[in-house]
Amino acid sequence: MSISSRKKWTPAIAGAVVLALGAAGVAQAQGSKDVEAAIKYRQSLYTVIGNNFGPLGAMATGKAPFDAALFQRNAARVAFLSTIAPEVFPAISRSGAPTKAKPAIWTNKAEFDRLMKDFQDKTAALATASKSGALEGVKAAFGAAGSACKACHDKFKAD
Amino acid sequence: MSISSRKKWTPAIAGAVVLALGAAGVAQAQGSKDVEAAIKYRQSLYTVIGNNFGPLGAMATGKAPFDAALFQRNAARVAFLSTIAPEVFPAISRSGAPTKAKPAIWTNKAEFDRLMKDFQDKTAALATASKSGALEGVKAAFGAAGSACKACHDKFKAD
Repeated sequence: MSISSRKKWTPAIAGAVVLALGAAGVAQAQGSKDVEAAIKYRQSLYTVIGNNFGPLGAMATGKAPFDAALFQRNAARVAFLSTIAPEVFPAISRSGAPTKAKPAIWTNKAEFDRLMKDFQDKTAALATASKSGALEGVKAAFGAAGSACKACHDKFKAD
Repeated sequence: MSISSRKKWTPAIAGAVVLALGAAGVAQAQGSKDVEAAIKYRQSLYTVIGNNFGPLGAMATGKAPFDAALFQRNAARVAFLSTIAPEVFPAISRSGAPTKAKPAIWTNKAEFDRLMKDFQDKTAALATASKSGALEGVKAAFGAAGSACKACHDKFKAD
């Protein structure tokens, strides 16, 4: 016998059921495949960002020789990819598959959005700075972009 | 006792050892973490491409309402991301972690490069066509881009 046949379905009962299911249960109800796909999309986007940001760090810190064309290309990519980033944190992706995204992303959204915007601004500035074609011209902008990444990870990404 | 202490190390022995190790062993020698990272980068890039191409297909085939701005945005993203794609097939990524990339990518590189170029050309054309802002203006270009994806997957991606 279903709940609805035993008792009149009310918003209060609906709310209680949602609470009882918990976050994972809600995710299940929304389609666990969708949840897994949303989390995979997020992790994939950041993997692509990281693969392009990494060489910038190596060049900016002198661990790799400075290649102006490579620096400019990768900086443009990271700036472009940062514009996709706000879309990879839909509410359904909060849990339901292994993720380092902390719940605070969704409970402290104003702060998350602020740091996301800073990430976009600083990587856009880095892409602009990279057009100078000189290592000295990108160091400060790289530092600012790296700090923007770190600020968000420190607050919203689990170790 | 190591090989080198029993017998003088020669290029012939080195070659024999490499053959004995096989592809997976070579990958190990080059750093299995690097191999896994290279495969992860490839899969991540294509996941991001797929997440942006999917809605284009839904709109082009009438499964989702046509949203000119969304179509243009995603088409520009796919075209941009396609320029990264040739880099995510380094030789070390041929095996060493689960991958659907077929060995033919590396043994039939001329054909792979040809289909990769076609993918880039057709998605660039789709991005251009999307500027028309009309569904009828993008259908043919979408079909060509989808066919370019399929041609490469049919030949070089395992099911």
